[in-house]
Parts: sequence; C-alpha cells; structure tokens
Amino acid sequence: MFKQRNIVVSTASAQHVDEQPVEIVERKGIGHPDSLCDGIAERISVEYSRWCREHFGTLLHHNFDKVQLVAGETEVGYGYGELIQPIRIQIAGRGTPTYQGRQIPMHTIAIEAARAHLRESLRYLDPVRHVVIDSYAGKGASELAHAVDKVTANDTSFGVGHWPHSNLEHIVYQSARHINTELLQQLPLGEDVKVMGARIEDVITLTVCLPLIATEVHDQAEYLEVRAAAREAIQRFAGGLTKRAVQVDVNTADDPEAGAVYLTLTGTSAEMGDDGSVGRGNRVTGVIAPFRAASLEAAAGKNPISHVGKLYNLLALEAAREIVTVLPEVRAATVYILSQIGKPLDEPLVAHAQLAPQNGTLTRGAEQQIAEILDAQLADITTLRERILRMELCPF
Amino acid sequence: MFKQRNIVVSTASAQHVDEQPVEIVERKGIGHPDSLCDGIAERISVEYSRWCREHFGTLLHHNFDKVQLVAGETEVGYGYGELIQPIRIQIAGRGTPTYQGRQIPMHTIAIEAARAHLRESLRYLDPVRHVVIDSYAGKGASELAHAVDKVTANDTSFGVGHWPHSNLEHIVYQSARHINTELLQQLPLGEDVKVMGARIEDVITLTVCLPLIATEVHDQAEYLEVRAAAREAIQRFAGGLTKRAVQVDVNTADDPEAGAVYLTLTGTSAEMGDDGSVGRGNRVTGVIAPFRAASLEAAAGKNPISHVGKLYNLLALEAAREIVTVLPEVRAATVYILSQIGKPLDEPLVAHAQLAPQNGTLTRGAEQQIAEILDAQLADITTLRERILRMELCPF
Amino acid sequence: MFKQRNIVVSTASAQHVDEQPVEIVERKGIGHPDSLCDGIAERISVEYSRWCREHFGTLLHHNFDKVQLVAGETEVGYGYGELIQPIRIQIAGRGTPTYQGRQIPMHTIAIEAARAHLRESLRYLDPVRHVVIDSYAGKGASELAHAVDKVTANDTSFGVGHWPHSNLEHIVYQSARHINTELLQQLPLGEDVKVMGARIEDVITLTVCLPLIATEVHDQAEYLEVRAAAREAIQRFAGGLTKRAVQVDVNTADDPEAGAVYLTLTGTSAEMGDDGSVGRGNRVTGVIAPFRAASLEAAAGKNPISHVGKLYNLLALEAAREIVTVLPEVRAATVYILSQIGKPLDEPLVAHAQLAPQNGTLTRGAEQQIAEILDAQLADITTLRERILRMELCPF
Amino acid sequence: MFKQRNIVVSTASAQHVDEQPVEIVERKGIGHPDSLCDGIAERISVEYSRWCREHFGTLLHHNFDKVQLVAGETEVGYGYGELIQPIRIQIAGRGTPTYQGRQIPMHTIAIEAARAHLRESLRYLDPVRHVVIDSYAGKGASELAHAVDKVTANDTSFGVGHWPHSNLEHIVYQSARHINTELLQQLPLGEDVKVMGARIEDVITLTVCLPLIATEVHDQAEYLEVRAAAREAIQRFAGGLTKRAVQVDVNTADDPEAGAVYLTLTGTSAEMGDDGSVGRGNRVTGVIAPFRAASLEAAAGKNPISHVGKLYNLLALEAAREIVTVLPEVRAATVYILSQIGKPLDEPLVAHAQLAPQNGTLTRGAEQQIAEILDAQLADITTLRERILRMELCPF
Repeated sequence: MFKQRNIVVSTASAQHVDEQPVEIVERKGIGHPDSLCDGIAERISVEYSRWCREHFGTLLHHNFDKVQLVAGETEVGYGYGELIQPIRIQIAGRGTPTYQGRQIPMHTIAIEAARAHLRESLRYLDPVRHVVIDSYAGKGASELAHAVDKVTANDTSFGVGHWPHSNLEHIVYQSARHINTELLQQLPLGEDVKVMGARIEDVITLTVCLPLIATEVHDQAEYLEVRAAAREAIQRFAGGLTKRAVQVDVNTADDPEAGAVYLTLTGTSAEMGDDGSVGRGNRVTGVIAPFRAASLEAAAGKNPISHVGKLYNLLALEAAREIVTVLPEVRAATVYILSQIGKPLDEPLVAHAQLAPQNGTLTRGAEQQIAEILDAQLADITTLRERILRMELCPF
Repeated sequence: MFKQRNIVVSTASAQHVDEQPVEIVERKGIGHPDSLCDGIAERISVEYSRWCREHFGTLLHHNFDKVQLVAGETEVGYGYGELIQPIRIQIAGRGTPTYQGRQIPMHTIAIEAARAHLRESLRYLDPVRHVVIDSYAGKGASELAHAVDKVTANDTSFGVGHWPHSNLEHIVYQSARHINTELLQQLPLGEDVKVMGARIEDVITLTVCLPLIATEVHDQAEYLEVRAAAREAIQRFAGGLTKRAVQVDVNTADDPEAGAVYLTLTGTSAEMGDDGSVGRGNRVTGVIAPFRAASLEAAAGKNPISHVGKLYNLLALEAAREIVTVLPEVRAATVYILSQIGKPLDEPLVAHAQLAPQNGTLTRGAEQQIAEILDAQLADITTLRERILRMELCPF
Repeated sequence: MFKQRNIVVSTASAQHVDEQPVEIVERKGIGHPDSLCDGIAERISVEYSRWCREHFGTLLHHNFDKVQLVAGETEVGYGYGELIQPIRIQIAGRGTPTYQGRQIPMHTIAIEAARAHLRESLRYLDPVRHVVIDSYAGKGASELAHAVDKVTANDTSFGVGHWPHSNLEHIVYQSARHINTELLQQLPLGEDVKVMGARIEDVITLTVCLPLIATEVHDQAEYLEVRAAAREAIQRFAGGLTKRAVQVDVNTADDPEAGAVYLTLTGTSAEMGDDGSVGRGNRVTGVIAPFRAASLEAAAGKNPISHVGKLYNLLALEAAREIVTVLPEVRAATVYILSQIGKPLDEPLVAHAQLAPQNGTLTRGAEQQIAEILDAQLADITTLRERILRMELCPF
Repeated sequence: MFKQRNIVVSTASAQHVDEQPVEIVERKGIGHPDSLCDGIAERISVEYSRWCREHFGTLLHHNFDKVQLVAGETEVGYGYGELIQPIRIQIAGRGTPTYQGRQIPMHTIAIEAARAHLRESLRYLDPVRHVVIDSYAGKGASELAHAVDKVTANDTSFGVGHWPHSNLEHIVYQSARHINTELLQQLPLGEDVKVMGARIEDVITLTVCLPLIATEVHDQAEYLEVRAAAREAIQRFAGGLTKRAVQVDVNTADDPEAGAVYLTLTGTSAEMGDDGSVGRGNRVTGVIAPFRAASLEAAAGKNPISHVGKLYNLLALEAAREIVTVLPEVRAATVYILSQIGKPLDEPLVAHAQLAPQNGTLTRGAEQQIAEILDAQLADITTLRERILRMELCPF
C-alpha cells in the first residue's frame, strides 16, 4: 500500500538528545536581523503568490530566499536616540516577471511585503523612516522555469523534522516567545531577543540578549532595574518549564560603568552593527539545534509549489507532530523525506519515520498507523501549500 | 592536567554515518553563487586583517560575513553569449573604520578582495566587465567592539568537526574537486559545479549540475558530446573511490529538444537566475552533510581573532584530523568545543572528543594522547589564526 | 557712498526681449522630474539647516545640489494603473556629518525631506509606495569647509536676475501655475505639466504637455474630452494675459487611435520613461528663457550661507523686482552681481543694474535710488538667507 | 529657395560681447566631476548607437543624458594618498532594451562606456579600483518611442551657436586645454582643472583651480614650487592670447600653513567632496558664458537621431563656424534654430543667422551665401549625426 511513497518506519537507535550530556540550543527572536530577513523573504513569497492567484488564478515560479539587511547607524544614550543612517534592505531573489503578456509588479509587491513585515514585527521601528528598502529581484533562468512547470522535485534534496522539542529546545523557544509577546508589554524592551541555551548534564544556562529602548530608559539606574526585572521574569518563566536547574544571564557583554549597555532606538541591533541575511537563523522548528539532523536549506522565501527544501522540511515537521499527537506510545518522532529528482513531490525516494517509543518498542498497529499518517501527509501536500500561503506555518 | 580546558574524551555510541541506511551529501563547487559569496567574505576578512597588521601591527575587530550576490542576466545560445545585466555583489559586514586617528580603506579593501577572489576562481568570468561590486559595509556597534578588545569568547557558541569524511562525503567532495580542477582543463565547463550524492544502503547516486560554456559549444550534438564525456569521466573517477555501486547523472533538468540545456557565458549560474549569499553553502568540512552535527554559523568572513563560530569550527576539524592521523586505532573522531562567554578562547566550557575506535574500545593511553592533542590545539589558537590569514584553511 | 559695494547703474542698450522677433520660454511644472529634483534638493538644504540651527544654534556648510531621479515603470491603461518598478531617488551632495563631536542625521534628514517634498507636490503619487529614496550624501573636502568658515565668496561666480517677466514669460509661467493649482482641481490631471511658449513676432504658440490620471479616465472618449477641456481652459486663461494671438496645443505627441495617449498612474512622467536631475529645469525666475542672460548654476540645494551661485541669483532677482516695484519710471531691470573670491559676500566685485526706463532716460535721483536699493539688498543678505530658510523664495 | 527651411539672415544690433564692460567665462576641465558625467553620458550614447548599428543596421531611440557621480573619500597628504570610499557613478537614462526580439546589452554597454571614458580622460585614476559604476538605465515611455519612429522634432525646442569665441572665451578655453594637454605632461597636476575668467573693461583675471597629485608632491615647498610653476606657465600662455592685462591666480583657497592645499590622489575632486551631474558644465561651445544666449539642454548623452536639443545646438555651432570661416567679411555669427514640433528636423520653424560684419553691413551676395550655408547644413543633418557618432564633435 505505501509502496508508491517508499515509506519506512523504524525505531531510533541513538540516545535521545535530552539524555545526551551536552546540548546547545539557540533561538533568534523575531526582531533579530536574520529573523527579519527570513520574515521578509517569506512574506514576499506569500504576497507574490497571492497576487498571482488573484490575478491569474495560478501560482508562478519564484524563489525570494535572498534578502540582505545592511545595518544602519544610530546615536543613542539614556533617554534619546537618533537615526543617522537608515537600515538598508536589499531584496534579491527570482520571480516570474511577466505572465500571459502581463507584467507582474514584482518589485512593488516585494517592497510592500518587506515593509508590512517590519511594521507587524517591530513596535519601535518605523518601516518608512528608519529603513530604505530596494528590490534587485530578477527573473529566473529559463531552464529552471521549465522544470518547475511539471511540479516535480527540482532537486535531489531532503527535509527533516522532529517532534517534540527537547526540554532545552522547549525552554529556549518558549522563553524567547514569552519575551517577544508578554515581557515586551511590561518592560521597555525591543524585539531583537536572542536566547542561547546550554545544558551540561542537568544544569541549564540561558544567556539572553535583550535590547532596551533608549528613549524609555533614562539613566543607568533605570537600565539596571529593567534588566534585572527582565532577568527575573525570564528566570521565573524558564524555571517553570523544567525540573533542571536554570541559570539566566542577561546582556552579559554589558559594562555599565564604562558606558557599555545595550540600548537601541528601534529595538533591533539592525539599527547599528548587525547585518542580516536569510537562512542564517532558526530552522523550521523555531530553533537552532546543532546536535539534531537539520536541513541547511533556507525555507523562508522559497516557493511553496515545487521547492523540496521548503515543502519537505515543513511536511516532515507536521508529520512528526501528528504522529506524536495521535500516538501516545510514541515519545518522539523524527521524519526524513528524500526527494527523487524529476518525480512528483508526493512520490519521494524515501520517507522515513524514526521513532522513540515510550517503552522501547512499537506495536505493528502503531507502525501501520504511523505509515498511514506519513502517507496522508504526502498525499495532501496541497493543504500544506495552502497553510503556507495563509501564513499558518512559520518556517523560522 | 586538562582541567583548565575542560577536555572530555569518550567513545561514540551512535551508529557511524557510513553504516546508516540513508545518507545525503552535497558540495557546491567554487563557482556556485553561494560559494562565491563565502569566498569573497573570507577574502575580505583576510585582506582587511593583512592591511591592519601591515599598517598598525595589529588585527582589528570585523565580521564580513554578509555578502549578497544578485544574479545578472545573459542571453546565451550555442556558440555565443552576451551579458545583458551584470552580476551585482553587495558587500555588507562590519569593520573598524578608523584606528589611532587613521582611516582604514575598508571599502576599497573589500571591493578589491571580492574582485581578486572572482578573478582567481572563475576562468570565463571577467570580474570587471561582468560584475558590479559595491560595498555597504559599516562600523560595528561600540558595545561589541568593546567586548572584543579582551579577546574572550563573544558568545555562548560552539564548533564541531569530524574526520574523516564518510565514504559518500569523500566521493562528493573529491568528485567536485576533480571537476573543478582536472575536468575543467579538458572540457568547456564552468566552475559552478554542484554534486549531490544520495546513498540508499549500498547504492550511490551522484546528481551533478555542470554548466557548459556557451561560446565553446556550437550545437546540440557538441553539447551532448561534452555532457556525455563529463558524465563518463565523473563516473570513472567516483567509481574508483568506492566499492559501492555508483550512478552518475549530469544536468538532469536538460531537455535539449526543447532548447533547455545548461549553457553559460561565464561558467556560473550567477550570471542568470541564481543569487548567492554567505553561509548558505558548504560547512567547514567542505560539504553539506545534514545527518551530521553541524554548526549553522557561517565561518566565512568572520574575524579570526575572537569569533567562536569560526575558530572553534576550524579548530574542531583540525583536532579531529590530527587525532585520526596520529592514532591508527581511531577510525573516526568528532570534536565539539563549547565556548564560555567572557572567558578566554583557550578555556572553553567543554571540549569533547567523541571517537569511533577501529575495534570497539580505546586504551587509556590513546585517550590521554587524544586529550593532549586537544589541549595543544586549544593552547595554540594563534597558529590556527595565522593559517587562516595565510588562507591555508578554507572554511567552505 | 557705494564705493565699497562697487555698484554700477546703467541704461540698457539692447532691444527689450519683448520686442525681439523670436522668443522662446519654457516652464517645467512642479511635477516634472527635473523640478522634483530641484524641489527635493532645496528642501534637503532647508531641513538640514533648520536641524543644525535647532541643535547647534548655527548653520553648517553643505551643498545638496545633486539629486538624481531614476524613472520607474508602470503599466497603465484607461481606468487602471499598476506600478511595476518604483521610482528611485538617489540623493548625493555634501554636508557636514559631525559637529562638536555630535553626529548629524544627514541621511535621515535628507530622505525625510525628499519624502516631504514629494508628498506636498504630487497628489496621486504615494511617496512611500511609489518611490525608493536612498542617500549617498557624504562629507565635503576639508579644504572647502575651511574656506566656508570665513563666509567669503567661495568662487569667482555671478548671479543675474531680471524683472518683470516679458509678456511671453508671464504667459508661460502663469499658465503653468494655473494648471498646477486651479485646473488640477477640476480635471484629472497630474502635476508634471510642461509649457513651452514660442513667439514669432506677435504670434504665440503654447505647447503644453499634460499627463492625465489613468485611474480616472476610463476610455478614449473621456480622454479626448478631458484633453479638450484642458486645452480650452488654458486657451482662455492664456488669451487673457496678452493682446497677441495665442494658439494652445496639448499633448501633440498623442495618437489616440494607435493607443498613444499620455496617461499616468501618479501624475508624473517620472513613473516611466523620464529621469530627472537638479539644475536642469527652471531658473530662479521660474522659467527657462534662453535669450536672457542666465546663470547655469543650480541654485536649488546649495547652501544659503556662502554659495554665490545661489545667493547672488536670488539677490539679483529680488533687487530687480524691488527696483521695478518702487520706481514706476523703470520698465525693466536686470541686475548682475559678480563675486570677488575671498571677499565677504556683501562686497562684490561689481553689482550692476541695467535698466530700461519707460521713457528713454533715468533721472539722477532715480539712479541714486536704484543704487540705494542694491546697496541695501547687499547689506541685508541675512534677510535673504532667512527667507530662503522659510521657503519663501523658490529657486526654480 | 530657402522658404522650406525658413531661413532668416540679419545683422546683429547688440553690442558684441567683447566690447561689453563686464564678461565672465568659465571652463570646467575634462576631469571636473560635471565634465566627467557629460563625457560618460555622451560616450554611452555613442557606444549604444554603434552597437545597434553593428547588430541591427539601424539606430535606436535613447537618451542617456542622466548620470550622477557621487564623490568618494580619500585620505591624502604630501607623498601619499589612499582611497577610502570609491567614487560611485550612477547611470540613469533611457534606451530601447529589446529590438526585433533580441535583447540589447544596454547596461553592459553603458558601464563599459563609462569606464572607457574615465580611462581615457584621467591618468591617475584607475577606473576599476577607484570607481564603482552601476547602471539603473531603463526603457523609455512607449509614447515617446512612438514619436521618435517618425524622426520629426520631438519638442518645440531650439539650438544656438556662436562663433568665434570672444577674446575672453578664447583665453579661458585655450588655457584650460593647454593645462589639460601640455602642462599635465610637465607638472604633477590632475585633469580636474577649472578656469574662471572675469574681464572688467580691459583687465582680465583668470582664477584657476588645479589639483596637484599627492603621491608626487612630497612637501609644502614642492607644492608651492609646482603651483608657482603652473601659475607662471598659464600666465605666459594666456598673456600670449590677448593684448589685455591678464592676472592669473591659482588655488586661491589654499592656506598652506593651515594644511589647506589642493592635493588629490586621482587628479579629480570627484575623489572627495565634489559630486557631478550631466548638463551642469560647459555648453557645446566648450565654455560657460552666461552673457550669451544659450540652450539649457544638456546635449551630452542625448540621442543624435531626433533630439533637437542636441542636434540644433551642434548644428548652429557648426553653421556659425562655417560662415565665419568662409566669409572674411563676417566678424562673428550667432545662429538660432527653432524646431517645429512634429515636422522633420530639416524643416525648422525658423533658422536665424545674426551676423556682425567687419565693417557694419553685409552685401546681398554675402547674405545669400550665408543662407546657402545654413540650408546645406540643415539638409545634411546626417553628416552631423555621423560626426557625432565618430566623436568628432564634443558637446561639452
């Protein structure tokens, strides 16, 4: 029955990452320059696709997975901030510029999408005043456009997804989100949060980088106060997510007496000193977990029609999530999907689910159920595509 | 003895990658747009460092790990090629623009370095005529410059290296190099080679993308002839590197009857349809091997003074290489080094060598020797830095 | 008494331009790409000066007289319009980037000033959505900054102004203004009006270029209707300004049957096909009158502190205007002021008023009065500067 | 006989410019930023035209009369010079990007043309190392392309030319050329020469700006020596061109004791502090002579097919030159040509030769001869076009 999809289900041999002696996990918050580039790239792909569907009733080939952010320059101090040189967003990427004799406003779509993403991601940054956005996007090579028409795998590529998060991944991911959603409403913090978690045996250290908003922090005392409040809140939040010992450090590079504090005008280090690029930040799981198998493909900005590097990564994640949700006897799932160049996307070379059962082994029935989940997910790649276009799945 | 460096030596529990059922490995050749960006970034870092040393006797903080390549546009056909729109190289990154009251010609250094790298990497591309290079680089945030002065770890970060290459990694890496060095002298091929290797059990498929040079290929017959010759040469070469079955496919997206062939004017897809960016290609091992633990840090372009993401990755690779070279009883080594933020680089939080012995276990003496190798490598980070500046270590 | 200012008053020998057999006069409306660049340049100078005064209590050296507008690309037709490629504004020019150890947000000021000018000049253009504005401005050569400190003439240069407008100049100037203010409220027209007047003896032809707004003109019939209404309104208006015969032509390059009509999305040809630059449009008199002596200096964007090319042109115009206003016996005045390099601005090499008396000669008293007017204007260059900074004087 | 061309021949009533009390003339040398932009613009037009003719056998519509030069940044001192930030050349302008289904390498042509012009104009500037050239050129509005097909006047426009140079014009023009050709071979001077001549009655002052080459001038003594030698040579040369008193000043803004001297690395102020733009420098006569009637149209870069602003200016100059050369009894000629929109170029609205006879009046025969010269020049506009394309006529 699953012959066609080449589905394999097996039990994982390796030690679960949670039990390995050392683990490192990082999450770049939504305001980090790399995350901003990922977000812009993905938004361009979505808006371009929506435009094409609205005007032509179809999706067109594109890959907007190249965006570079060049840091601006600011002068900030306690209580004030001034933008000297705006941030530059340089959009590259490839689209289909004309279709059926009609030009597609590719550059306008791209620039507006970038601006929309910035507007919705950063409270203190003014996407008009603080940023210069230009589009250098062009058309793809004709050969590739050709290959895409058939909607087969464009490459021998692969996707991987694992679920659930390890305990450290969970802490890092949720802490970053907590800061980006809750804490920002209580304290004058920017969105360019970075949480780096290191676990050595059962001791967890979270090193958090947190920009404070210069115009709302009026002196060193207030800075230290806000930083301490943030540290405590994160400590409390993260501590509640694990039984392990957690140590939270915030802005460790500070040297307040020497004037070295992390103040920003806009809430992101992109305003000064930190460039950004697509595919250099979080994986589709929302974290960077170097001890896990991971695709290096930047999912953000790639077309959701045919790009294996995007679709299989998200599909693998969704399948792993469904397996663990549906089958209580599965503690953890890792799904690998390998494309077969020139074959339809729902006929991979191999789709492999590696499972960690709660109690050592899986029943034949569970294996069958897992294979069915994988099969259904592959069969229904269209739904995945729609969810991407509705921005329900964040690839970073 | 090794207390200070927190060195751990252990035997690997996991199955060796060579014995896993599925393996995927990719190498982007030196002419691939992403590799070009990596190469340019690294060259800028090297030339900037050399300039500073020559003029100031010291190295200065920088991170030139952001370079974006925007594809050009060409019109090519059998026997001819014309550049319509040059390739754009947009250099970002952060340096120290002035030192001791003297300005550093950062932009000039960066642009010249980019041009030098292109000149030395691509035979058919004219780095003046075919490329517009501009520098948008700026200065770093003062806070970071401050932290760097002390040359301590700038981040909780980590590096990982493994040695030797698995069989598939070896085949992919060496085949790409063989094409980029030998085959290019015999056939009208460009440097933008991509080799994707997939192994399912003992069957290896190499999917190779190979641009042909338009001006030297005069008709379809000649195209097919060159492509076939290339395929055979790669098949012969790759076949000689393994006992497994190898199947080589070249330019699978071709449809010559429909005019879809892979012809280029300059030997790189950067001329049309393919943008590039730093850190999106090969890891420091020279390949992309998604089933291996790997750092996502882009090593290319980062400063070799203090950047853990660069230094520890290269150090881990060199240590693993030395371990395997010196100790015949070690079949494979993986080295992890974890930084301790705020501590000197040679005092990592932990440096961990995971080893696969030829026959199951390691002697106490071997373990001691391995720890000494790690210790010596860490103690001598200066030599590593010098080798980077002499461009003896390629981080991609 | 006027020795110090080297003031000369004389009677003009040449035939008045009104009486010459042929006369050509042109005005580029406020939405013309060249006028937009002039307006942006001037606005940058004003905003930069205001910022410096507000923050430092003084004005700083600058010349923002270089702005390039690169046309965008649109797709328009009856009833619709789409922006494909935004207009690019490339700001160059020189400013003082730091003063008393504080950085001046030169780029931010420049970009915001450009946006403000566009917003206030064009009703249908969205200065965010339709335009990408970037600043490449830099600092001036140290040598020049030095010379400026002393506020002496920076050059052997000159300014010239004449008053009143000739009859044709009056017609061209007022017609363009009439269209730009009145007619635009009644008809769907854009601001990129161009009025070219040619007079051969007593026959005047006005050739008017007038963009119609694509989204408000739904078919050819409506286009022809609007164009005819505009033509008639201009004919009526211009006819009322002269006793000569006036013939008005509108959009003579149209060929409606072939689809060649002048429709725009934004009201300016900058949206497609027409680049712009500073100093390529109207002189300080508001028109281009090639038979008149005129300075080629672009007044717009130059600093009002020391730049002779700006100050003397405006001063000459104001002086000529005052002479004619105050002395009914003067029919027309032309004022030339020549700088003396290295000398204070109010000590020109020569300030020369050439006058056309109503009845052939001027009384000694009138000459004295004229000399006094010139003297007072020169003495009070500060007031001129203030009027420039309040944008009461438009240099184009 | 000349009815068709509407040729008018008359005797000038106005005082010859040589006899007016005040005269100002300026020439920006070939290395001045504005002249560089003019030269680049013109070269692009020529190379684009040549390419089209070679590949299509025809010329295509274009106007490359917009080029902006953004000054670089250098650090110079006695004996050394370093480029910190390269000069940026931003090419705008409009061309026909495709013809008969084939793309024209417009950007490549433009960038190469710019580089060629720089290489041939400046000895110390390296057009690769010191300059970043990018092309933002686009296509024209379809409406204009349409109008051009018919090769009729594209505008109500006019051209004017006068011959010979006045004495001051002659001195300024020849002195600048003398410096740019002879003096540069003897002294370490750059090409960015500016000669400003002012004549008050019979006293002429030449104010000359002359960059010295930093790497070849080793101390203040040498600077002063070279400057003095240059001054003397110019004094000698200029003095030999007139019976009037001539005073030559060189680099009057210098203050050597305060370190304010005019040293450059590349021989042009474009390297630091001086931006450039097309149409802001010399008129087609090679000088800026504000007391003369002059067209404000930038001739450089405009297409030589249909652009009245270019063709009529050059034609008028050539006609004036021929008249004075052929008829010894004509002391000076000014030719005006006024286009008739929509009519062929050789049928102007009026072509008017205003002449200053040596002895007050012209014979009927001379008038007839002059009319014939004008008629022949108009009839043979093709030859003019060819001379432009062979770069025999310099429009600046």
